Amino acid sequence: MAEYDAVVVGAGVLGLATAYHIKRQNPGHRVLVIERLSGPGQGSTAKSAGMFRVFFYSKTNLALAHTSVEFYKHLQEERGIELNIRWVGYLWLFDAKGYGKIKPVLDAISARGLEYRVLEAPELEKTMGLRTDLSGDDEAELMELPNVDYGVFVPRAGSIDVDALVRFYEMAFFELGGKIAYNAEVKRLLVEPKSPLGVPGEPFIWQDAVVKGVETSSGEIRARKVVIAAGAWSHKLLGPIGLECFFRPKKRQLFSIRVSGKPELERLLWTKGLNKEGCMPFTILPRPRVYLRPAPEEEAIWLSFADELGRPFEEDPELEPAPEPEFYEYGLYQVAVKYFPQLEGCRPDAAWAGYYAENPIDHQPVVFEEAGVMVVGGASGSGIMKADAIGRIAAALYSGQEEAELFGGEMFRVSDLSIRERRVEPEKLVI
Amino acid sequence: MAEYDAVVVGAGVLGLATAYHIKRQNPGHRVLVIERLSGPGQGSTAKSAGMFRVFFYSKTNLALAHTSVEFYKHLQEERGIELNIRWVGYLWLFDAKGYGKIKPVLDAISARGLEYRVLEAPELEKTMGLRTDLSGDDEAELMELPNVDYGVFVPRAGSIDVDALVRFYEMAFFELGGKIAYNAEVKRLLVEPKSPLGVPGEPFIWQDAVVKGVETSSGEIRARKVVIAAGAWSHKLLGPIGLECFFRPKKRQLFSIRVSGKPELERLLWTKGLNKEGCMPFTILPRPRVYLRPAPEEEAIWLSFADELGRPFEEDPELEPAPEPEFYEYGLYQVAVKYFPQLEGCRPDAAWAGYYAENPIDHQPVVFEEAGVMVVGGASGSGIMKADAIGRIAAALYSGQEEAELFGGEMFRVSDLSIRERRVEPEKLVI
Repeated sequence: MAEYDAVVVGAGVLGLATAYHIKRQNPGHRVLVIERLSGPGQGSTAKSAGMFRVFFYSKTNLALAHTSVEFYKHLQEERGIELNIRWVGYLWLFDAKGYGKIKPVLDAISARGLEYRVLEAPELEKTMGLRTDLSGDDEAELMELPNVDYGVFVPRAGSIDVDALVRFYEMAFFELGGKIAYNAEVKRLLVEPKSPLGVPGEPFIWQDAVVKGVETSSGEIRARKVVIAAGAWSHKLLGPIGLECFFRPKKRQLFSIRVSGKPELERLLWTKGLNKEGCMPFTILPRPRVYLRPAPEEEAIWLSFADELGRPFEEDPELEPAPEPEFYEYGLYQVAVKYFPQLEGCRPDAAWAGYYAENPIDHQPVVFEEAGVMVVGGASGSGIMKADAIGRIAAALYSGQEEAELFGGEMFRVSDLSIRERRVEPEKLVI
Repeated sequence: MAEYDAVVVGAGVLGLATAYHIKRQNPGHRVLVIERLSGPGQGSTAKSAGMFRVFFYSKTNLALAHTSVEFYKHLQEERGIELNIRWVGYLWLFDAKGYGKIKPVLDAISARGLEYRVLEAPELEKTMGLRTDLSGDDEAELMELPNVDYGVFVPRAGSIDVDALVRFYEMAFFELGGKIAYNAEVKRLLVEPKSPLGVPGEPFIWQDAVVKGVETSSGEIRARKVVIAAGAWSHKLLGPIGLECFFRPKKRQLFSIRVSGKPELERLLWTKGLNKEGCMPFTILPRPRVYLRPAPEEEAIWLSFADELGRPFEEDPELEPAPEPEFYEYGLYQVAVKYFPQLEGCRPDAAWAGYYAENPIDHQPVVFEEAGVMVVGGASGSGIMKADAIGRIAAALYSGQEEAELFGGEMFRVSDLSIRERRVEPEKLVI
């Protein structure tokens, strides 16, 4: 007999959003979230940059991010949940060639009514102290760093307090009567015959089998439906029972530089004139796409880069992956300081690392069910900004609905995020 | 300086077919195959059932298998290469319900001019001694084994000597001047900057990097292009450099029963009237789809089953995976003996196991290139019957052609087997 209707493995932002929406749609169902760590969103969720944008080429991305961000805005502005949303905007930097390539994509996005503004080199130099012309700099030439000719500023984008967001989902889930078991590790999924005979060695090949629950560090828990939302660790649960999760972990690291006491850096962080927050936008360099993330709440600027080739897919991801000092010293810093001389000599005051659950097929999330187990994940670094929509889509799949109603009423075909009937539009404006 | 134009990792059937066609298309190129084992096709290739069929719903499957099998036929009939092709045919068994479901698929395949014949229960009983009516058998009912109401016999299908096939590719490759390094293990792929500076720690994030070769047990080997055709072991090379191969290994096992001295089994093996070989066809039971493979060359019948849920994807596949006695005893045997009472009391005289390189997205092969490395694999259990076509498609990708010319002149769009522009038709008639 199943003790729960649904067991959700993982209390990251995707697991909690999923659990909350399942419980909201099915108030009578017994829903349990199981989490290895001691609180909500303490895995990769806590390590994320916590950025969002509502400016995508892909209609899939747009639907997921737009409705999620609208929901977060609604929470903050109408329901008094303080999520510290800061509309700092995104600023992509391009040289003339890169800009020429992306222009048709920007035009297509703009035709959908999404706003952007082009800033030219002199304005970028003036407002941000950006060094746009690297010609004559031998090191920059050796590094093949392009000049900056244009900046594309997207206002409908910003940062959010990730911890506050997961705590909202946790609280809202609790209020509906949901349960969470913290400090409980799921060891394996229980594959059992639909009609057990009670014979050792079951299930045999002539028995129809399904996932009927999980084995945890403190015993077995049975559920009508198991939902895997374990991010970087999902494949470690699914692989052993012969299911593929279609995403794999890649380590991503952030390095934080405090600006206090460094007047030039303070001026950069508190860049005026680009947004209402009166701080620098989330800024993406031309190549490599190192990004600078303003963290005004801690008077810091974060630096990061999503390295691809050479950065392994982790078979066995760590609980606390270590940031790599040389990644900053010989990588991020060398690139960033060429464009922002204000960073000269700066070393990180803090650093941390987490994992992207990277879907290498199309970098979009997957939500599917197989053999009684649902899989939710693979947001590939966009989990925060899409979490609410993904949770609603997962809840719709749980409830057997063909379409999910996203926040604001937009309908989304659930199978679009499945594997077999997948229908996602590729993104052309990436970081 | 690259020592080779192409290094192919893996001398299984896909690696050798690829190497041969690359060398055939580019006679002046220096092509090296690197293989950990001591001869051709000694990994999963040697462990395969060695069956082929030219009867598919999917146009992708049909193109790949049809042209490959025609090539093998051409080798045997016109070029005197003895591949021991036996046109035993495939025989799928169905109950009335299963047959009703598959009938539209059969009609669609038939409309393309592919032949099949329907056999009814009495004929199957008479020719093969098949037990078609299991009603009243308590055990069979407990196991939920369906009756057999129909057999679908496909004549354009059979078995091939896999060892002879890989030896043909090896010989043909040698004749063109290709080289093979046996007993050499590839430890890792070399990711290096396109323009190296000779500084420790390269490549840095600001350098464009590519795969420039491999590190083997006996030193580094550089190549303009590295081709991974390492089957079950491919992800162990690609994952560490951050590339996904899109297939994973699943253990598959075969159990061989000698028929000599067992008159009833001899009669089954030498079933008359269904094919020109005068032996039983490759026979697939209704559910679970346990199959019986005639092995007349060794007076044996092989039994197997491709188990899905519960059969792990192996992170770390073994060189010599062990067959599991209980898989036969409580699985294969229990099912098979209900339909073929001739098997009563039979235990396997030999058993072995290998790996399917299973592509869980669509079960079709992948051929793609990323960061200077080509990946060929994921045939998901159909590698032998599609090897020649896959080799030609891989060679076309290597040569920068948009279309590959398959044997007989049929053209195949190379990117159809890629990930980004993938276009494969799903199969509806599976085993």
